[in-house]
Amino acid sequence: MSSLPASLVDELSALLGDGWLTGASERAAHGNDNSRRSALPDAVAVPSTREQVVAIVRACRAHRVPIVARGAGTSSTGAVLPTAGGVVVSFDRMNRILDIRAGDRCVVVEPGVLNGDLQRALAPHGLFWPPDPASAELCTVGGNLACNAGGPHTVKYGATRDNVLGLSAVTGSGELIRCGSATTKDATGYDLTHLIVGSEGTLALIVEATLKLAPLPPQRASLRALYLDVASAAAAVSRIMAQPVTPAMLEFMDAACIRLARDVGGADIPDAGALLMIEADGDAATLPHAVAVLAHAARGAGLLSLDTAPDEIASEKLWAARKALSPALRSIAPGKINEDVVVPVTRIPDLVDGIQALAREFDLRIVAFGHAGNGNLHANILFDPDDTSQDARAQAALPRLFALTLALGGTLSGEHGIGLAKRDFMVHAFDPATLAAMRAVKAAFDPDGVLNPGKVLP
Amino acid sequence: MSSLPASLVDELSALLGDGWLTGASERAAHGNDNSRRSALPDAVAVPSTREQVVAIVRACRAHRVPIVARGAGTSSTGAVLPTAGGVVVSFDRMNRILDIRAGDRCVVVEPGVLNGDLQRALAPHGLFWPPDPASAELCTVGGNLACNAGGPHTVKYGATRDNVLGLSAVTGSGELIRCGSATTKDATGYDLTHLIVGSEGTLALIVEATLKLAPLPPQRASLRALYLDVASAAAAVSRIMAQPVTPAMLEFMDAACIRLARDVGGADIPDAGALLMIEADGDAATLPHAVAVLAHAARGAGLLSLDTAPDEIASEKLWAARKALSPALRSIAPGKINEDVVVPVTRIPDLVDGIQALAREFDLRIVAFGHAGNGNLHANILFDPDDTSQDARAQAALPRLFALTLALGGTLSGEHGIGLAKRDFMVHAFDPATLAAMRAVKAAFDPDGVLNPGKVLP
Ligand SMILES: Cc1cc2nc3c(=O)[nH]c(=O)nc-3n(C[C@H](O)[C@H](O)[C@H](O)COP(=O)(O)OP(=O)(O)OC[C@H]3O[C@@H](n4cnc5c(N)ncnc54)[C@H](O)[C@@H]3O)c2cc1C
Ligand SMILES: Cc1cc2nc3c(=O)[nH]c(=O)nc-3n(C[C@H](O)[C@H](O)[C@H](O)COP(=O)(O)OP(=O)(O)OC[C@H]3O[C@@H](n4cnc5c(N)ncnc54)[C@H](O)[C@@H]3O)c2cc1C
Repeated sequence: MSSLPASLVDELSALLGDGWLTGASERAAHGNDNSRRSALPDAVAVPSTREQVVAIVRACRAHRVPIVARGAGTSSTGAVLPTAGGVVVSFDRMNRILDIRAGDRCVVVEPGVLNGDLQRALAPHGLFWPPDPASAELCTVGGNLACNAGGPHTVKYGATRDNVLGLSAVTGSGELIRCGSATTKDATGYDLTHLIVGSEGTLALIVEATLKLAPLPPQRASLRALYLDVASAAAAVSRIMAQPVTPAMLEFMDAACIRLARDVGGADIPDAGALLMIEADGDAATLPHAVAVLAHAARGAGLLSLDTAPDEIASEKLWAARKALSPALRSIAPGKINEDVVVPVTRIPDLVDGIQALAREFDLRIVAFGHAGNGNLHANILFDPDDTSQDARAQAALPRLFALTLALGGTLSGEHGIGLAKRDFMVHAFDPATLAAMRAVKAAFDPDGVLNPGKVLP
Repeated sequence: MSSLPASLVDELSALLGDGWLTGASERAAHGNDNSRRSALPDAVAVPSTREQVVAIVRACRAHRVPIVARGAGTSSTGAVLPTAGGVVVSFDRMNRILDIRAGDRCVVVEPGVLNGDLQRALAPHGLFWPPDPASAELCTVGGNLACNAGGPHTVKYGATRDNVLGLSAVTGSGELIRCGSATTKDATGYDLTHLIVGSEGTLALIVEATLKLAPLPPQRASLRALYLDVASAAAAVSRIMAQPVTPAMLEFMDAACIRLARDVGGADIPDAGALLMIEADGDAATLPHAVAVLAHAARGAGLLSLDTAPDEIASEKLWAARKALSPALRSIAPGKINEDVVVPVTRIPDLVDGIQALAREFDLRIVAFGHAGNGNLHANILFDPDDTSQDARAQAALPRLFALTLALGGTLSGEHGIGLAKRDFMVHAFDPATLAAMRAVKAAFDPDGVLNPGKVLP
């Protein structure tokens, strides 16, 4: 049934009791993610304590058996797939919120807590944890940390890496390390905390985290700006980001997305070359001013129209177009490659122009939208996987999209991470010396290469 | 004269020409820092290009000769002292501002540029680089990066680590690596950028940095709050930090500092148990509201008086007490151990109480002031180094101060770093497994241990 050494199975089943799963359906349930690929683990371990995590890693290491940490399995890159078999470590039972320290603006959690559950627990304290992936209700804080997840509020509040103060984690050597502290300033030794964030379970398994919190803004207001072309919208993004009132969100949609949101999604929106959705947050006294300042910055050559929604109900209406987009995309194309490339803000027009050129060259529908304030656009290649020619063209366009991004001084991923999907493009993003330094770091944390083998590094 | 191998001297003098210094006075000028210690290097290399830095590291490594990067030599911890001899690499000639990218809110610099010079170059673009150590006019960006420097504005804008997007650096293997990018969001591979920040020249020599900038706030206003005791002031700090209007500065002085600022520094200020100086920044439309909100949060049990300065001239007057403090401290005690410990904000009262208990136990004057919003207090042990008994008591009190800080869940350094001065306390701050992980990272970047040997790690 399982190809694990019998002594390992004996040791871990004794250690974990009903937290040791080897049934076919349980293994299958822990072998997939949002990348539409799958791979079966030999067994699933569901520890309840950090000591159990240490014991699992030590036992697996002794037998050179791969270990793949698993949060909720919503990864878009195959990062969580046990492609080399071995043991999946599920953090389902380590999902407690250990300590809400409102006075210190931080919270101590186990990795398995869902992002959405954490937000609900924090709200009564007037606080929130800034990382806001669209998957918040489904995904775990541990997965957010491991992927350096982000979302629309990242433009003002930072991504996951910017909102973590300390970690406890078990390295590939089976050692429990503790880095960082419940303080917002730290110049003590090497910063292992931010190194482990974004390492996709390849350096250490996170067993506890101290997260930095932000005060919940009491009110929000939104603006919707339509532009003649992408260049005018990108110039507005630069103007908006160059003044002190940072928007809480600054989202972009290209012309194709606008049309889709209207024609397929039913949104009430005219044609335009590009759209910006801008959110301001604050309180009753400052919000009108913030809206005025952001509106001023949004105005300029190429602006077609500017609508403001002074309150949350009116905002909902403006945001409807952005929200209609994802379902619309799903309904028009059975296949979708959704990449989250990033470029410097001033290069957004070149990126969108380049994407349109690729769409023409490969005769594909490619649309772009996303987090303009960070230059982080979701380029969606739409295709029919059952049409072999379309499928081949989509796969061929992908490396060209990455080459374009890198040529513009950008990078492969803004929030989804590398996983399996983008691993082979790492050689284009980094020179051999930098990749060698990353490999040396991997060897320092995981000398036998048992943690999530085959991910991130080519 | 120098104990360097002749072939190394030949190679580096040929490479560097007048950038290769071996004169006694030149060596002496590169062998000191702000820690009042000194150590002579065998030679000083002053490269003009990154290729020269690569060549220097490779040549020194081949002979196992130590290499110590040097910015301006203002380190407070002995981090920059060549205690093992070898070659000091001065970044004096690599001090260009390469590219101010206002639209991307970032700047590309060489490491030798002075923090103050950079700020003056950025101001016309309406931008600034947030790290604001008191030494800004003297110290280099490379030194700021290597130490993760901070200052009073860190409470709102973050420390150095929070304001760097990418680096080029030469590792101890003599390899030039490039990490990060000119984007504010990045989930691509391991985060080497933030690991190198704060590593005090022990992992790599930084040869170029892409720094994240913030828009200059057009106006500032200040508040001065006096409290009955430290507990009331610390409760106010928690209240201030728990609401959405983050202060631009939030500085603390204990009762002894207040008395010193008045009696020695001549500041116009009544006695009190503790003082908070609060700065708000913004524009004409929002500043009055920000001041009102911060004043509201500052009010509470134990508040003695609250003065507001609506503009920069009135602010200067309020800040006079804080500014009078450093000269006053210098004038009353010939010796001063200035530590920059950090605790969670809610533990500030315990830290100050503990410091007062230590002062009584060791019969010493110890005062505390600093960056309350980050829980980062400067504990200053005042003594006369010529009085052997006082000197011995001061040295004995120091480990107790660190033990107190760690017991409160804090950490050894908030901004000065570890260097030599705090190296031997690292075993108390981290458990053996975490220190072993740091040592493994060191070996990954610098396999022969040539970069700044003897610093940071015990
Ligand atoms: C509908 C949908 C929308 C999405 N939107 C966004 C978005 O807006 N922004 C965004 O950033 N992402 C988004 N994602 C991707 C995904 O949700 C995030 O990457 C999320 O952070 C993954 O969390 P998870 O708990 O599902 O982790 P998993 O998928 O289980 O694991 C992801 C990676 O983290 C590692 N890992 C998990 N737990 C630990 C741990 N405790 N210690 C060490 N490593 C661990 C795994 O080994 C794996 O490498 C979306 C996904 C879906 C399905
Ligand atoms: C009056 C005074 C006030 C101060 N106030 C503050 C304060 O408010 N906040 C604060 O944080 N610090 C403060 N400091 C300490 C000091 O100024 C900072 O640590 C500063 O960042 C050091 O910069 P430097 O250029 O002088 O670096 P140096 O002292 O030359 O070097 C410091 C460390 O950085 C390394 N280094 C330098 N350049 C590089 C490089 N290019 N690559 C790799 N490593 C490098 C060195 O090897 C050394 O380990 C103060 C110092 C003084 C004298």
